[in-house]
Amino acid sequence: MPIAERMAGIMSRPSAIRDAFEDGLKLKALYGPENVYDFSIGDPDVPPPPRVKEVLAGLLDDPSVNHAYMPNAGHHYVRENVAAYLSGIMGAHLTAEQIIMTVGAAGGLNCVFKALLDPADEVLVPAPYFVGYNGYVANHGARLVPVRTGPGFQPDVAALTAALTPATKVLLINSPNNPTGAVYTEQTIRALAEMLEQHYRDSGRRVYLVSDEPYRSIIYDGLAAPSVMKAYPHSVVVTSYSKELSLPGERIGFAAVHPEAEDSVRLARAVAVANRVLGFVNAPSLAQHLVGRLQGLTVDIGIYRRRRDMICEGLSRIGYRFTRPKGAFYLFPEAPGGDEARFIGLLKEERILAVPGSGFGCPGYFRLSYAVPDTTIENSLPGFARAFEKA
Amino acid sequence: MPIAERMAGIMSRPSAIRDAFEDGLKLKALYGPENVYDFSIGDPDVPPPPRVKEVLAGLLDDPSVNHAYMPNAGHHYVRENVAAYLSGIMGAHLTAEQIIMTVGAAGGLNCVFKALLDPADEVLVPAPYFVGYNGYVANHGARLVPVRTGPGFQPDVAALTAALTPATKVLLINSPNNPTGAVYTEQTIRALAEMLEQHYRDSGRRVYLVSDEPYRSIIYDGLAAPSVMKAYPHSVVVTSYSKELSLPGERIGFAAVHPEAEDSVRLARAVAVANRVLGFVNAPSLAQHLVGRLQGLTVDIGIYRRRRDMICEGLSRIGYRFTRPKGAFYLFPEAPGGDEARFIGLLKEERILAVPGSGFGCPGYFRLSYAVPDTTIENSLPGFARAFEKA
Repeated sequence: MPIAERMAGIMSRPSAIRDAFEDGLKLKALYGPENVYDFSIGDPDVPPPPRVKEVLAGLLDDPSVNHAYMPNAGHHYVRENVAAYLSGIMGAHLTAEQIIMTVGAAGGLNCVFKALLDPADEVLVPAPYFVGYNGYVANHGARLVPVRTGPGFQPDVAALTAALTPATKVLLINSPNNPTGAVYTEQTIRALAEMLEQHYRDSGRRVYLVSDEPYRSIIYDGLAAPSVMKAYPHSVVVTSYSKELSLPGERIGFAAVHPEAEDSVRLARAVAVANRVLGFVNAPSLAQHLVGRLQGLTVDIGIYRRRRDMICEGLSRIGYRFTRPKGAFYLFPEAPGGDEARFIGLLKEERILAVPGSGFGCPGYFRLSYAVPDTTIENSLPGFARAFEKA
Repeated sequence: MPIAERMAGIMSRPSAIRDAFEDGLKLKALYGPENVYDFSIGDPDVPPPPRVKEVLAGLLDDPSVNHAYMPNAGHHYVRENVAAYLSGIMGAHLTAEQIIMTVGAAGGLNCVFKALLDPADEVLVPAPYFVGYNGYVANHGARLVPVRTGPGFQPDVAALTAALTPATKVLLINSPNNPTGAVYTEQTIRALAEMLEQHYRDSGRRVYLVSDEPYRSIIYDGLAAPSVMKAYPHSVVVTSYSKELSLPGERIGFAAVHPEAEDSVRLARAVAVANRVLGFVNAPSLAQHLVGRLQGLTVDIGIYRRRRDMICEGLSRIGYRFTRPKGAFYLFPEAPGGDEARFIGLLKEERILAVPGSGFGCPGYFRLSYAVPDTTIENSLPGFARAFEKA
């Protein structure tokens, strides 16, 4: 077998999102794309703010902007700008030294895991969770340990406490959450911090809290995502501008190491070294210059909120049961009838594409991405009603 | 120890290039940057061709260009353009299916290694070799096996043959070479191909030839780098636009899988899956659109050739011994007196920065990058002469 056995294993595992994507291609070819209601992909369809194009145009005329190498952590002034903005929203005093610009949040997580994880280390994650985490943890020989969440998809502190072992090195959280849209409350974050401090007092083992926050600004109902850095010093925030600025193809994000984390200086340096060793080298230069000038800017969140309201009201009226999402652009309803595979099939008969919850470590549910035009939501509701009746 | 033990090991190993970089900072602070002759870093100082800026400006006004996700392998039309151009210079019939756009050559090599290497597999590499390869191979649990080159830094086929084991999965070559500037001859490439075919006949084991070619177009004296794809079907070419277009900060390159390689279709798909799993997701979108429109364009190679001639004539007149480089922008002379550490110290007394050969698996030599202004070369020659006298 010429390709690596390990890679053959990765490729042979069923991928719920890929299956939905391929089903979508077939249905769109058969019925025309306007007659297929594709809720499968979390690809922002809200355009970037107009400032993005203006700033890019300005960069081309700026003689100080070139395309050369820079330190692995990124352009210093960009890291300063990120640190200043992040300090405000995190309530922590960050400087450029704690910021490493990365190839999106996916690249950032891999750099942080390379810096923290040895083979056989364990990473706890509340389930459901973003499916890519399996690979990101396995890349470094470590093991992802999913732990079911409680009501409203909030992390279950008792269940997580029971899952802590001497091999636990990281607690990985993601809020606003993909796939549930849950926003972890300040109370939850404080309880997680207290759990990890207690574990340290009991065992002498330091567990880092790695917080994956690409949806931080996509949040509704006047909420703000609480700061993990205020709650727990041994924390690393990883994020991207993929959703906040609708730039997912440009691969730009960062990792921020809490200045008071244990071994903070060395950890930040290790994340930058990982950027080089893993082959990222540095985050794309132009995209760094771009986001360095756009701190705090976001896409029009009102569009996503309107769609959240449309799909929640529509499905609720039919009888679907779900926790109303408070952030991100996903809805994670229970599969009517309980059998998610059967129900995904019923939706497909209506040319509605969704991803089964088992793809996120949570069978019995399905995920809808409402980063889709309003008309897709409106026109799909009769199909959702028919599928519900048949279940 | 909170950071990973494995990462602590990586960070504790001496890095010849990093040491030279830090020495440089100190010397520049002491004497002023204009009085330090820094030949340590391979960062192109020749500006990108003017077309780069024109095309970038055009992209901002092109309504078909956005910043959204695309398939992990990259934009299809970009891959088509790359395939068409590469088919011409490789003498192989490539299509978009065999091209995966990557985050530079470093990202590309990591994707190819993820696709090919299982733990304990071995990668043969002629030494001296680019120092980053150690990490890229170790990332996937495999082992880099350096094999000394012969005269003119051409791969030594007998030595490589003796180093083949049942664990050998990849032969990794790099021509034009960093750090030697050697261009592997057509005869060398043919001999390597024949060696691997013979190994297959003897053992039934297929060894892939992975050719890292970021300096392919930076080549002198009317030479052209021979095609590995013409010589050996089980080959993968990895490259970037970092040096050809002076865009190293933008992280854009590609991997190309020979259409007749064993398991070619699955291998190309595996490289794209690796792009996702390793956290690259895709090569930066804007940079893809840019290089897709600039196939075959290169920086002004005449500038590098002039510097090559200047430094070769200057050092030769003094009495330095070296193989005249035929490509890239590096010179790899013998350390006068034989003790490279001592000689690097003598150069530093003259405020000349070079990297010891041991950093490239080849003690007794040192590397000079002549991607520096002409004046740096001119003004450094008296210092090179004094250091030579003292050695």
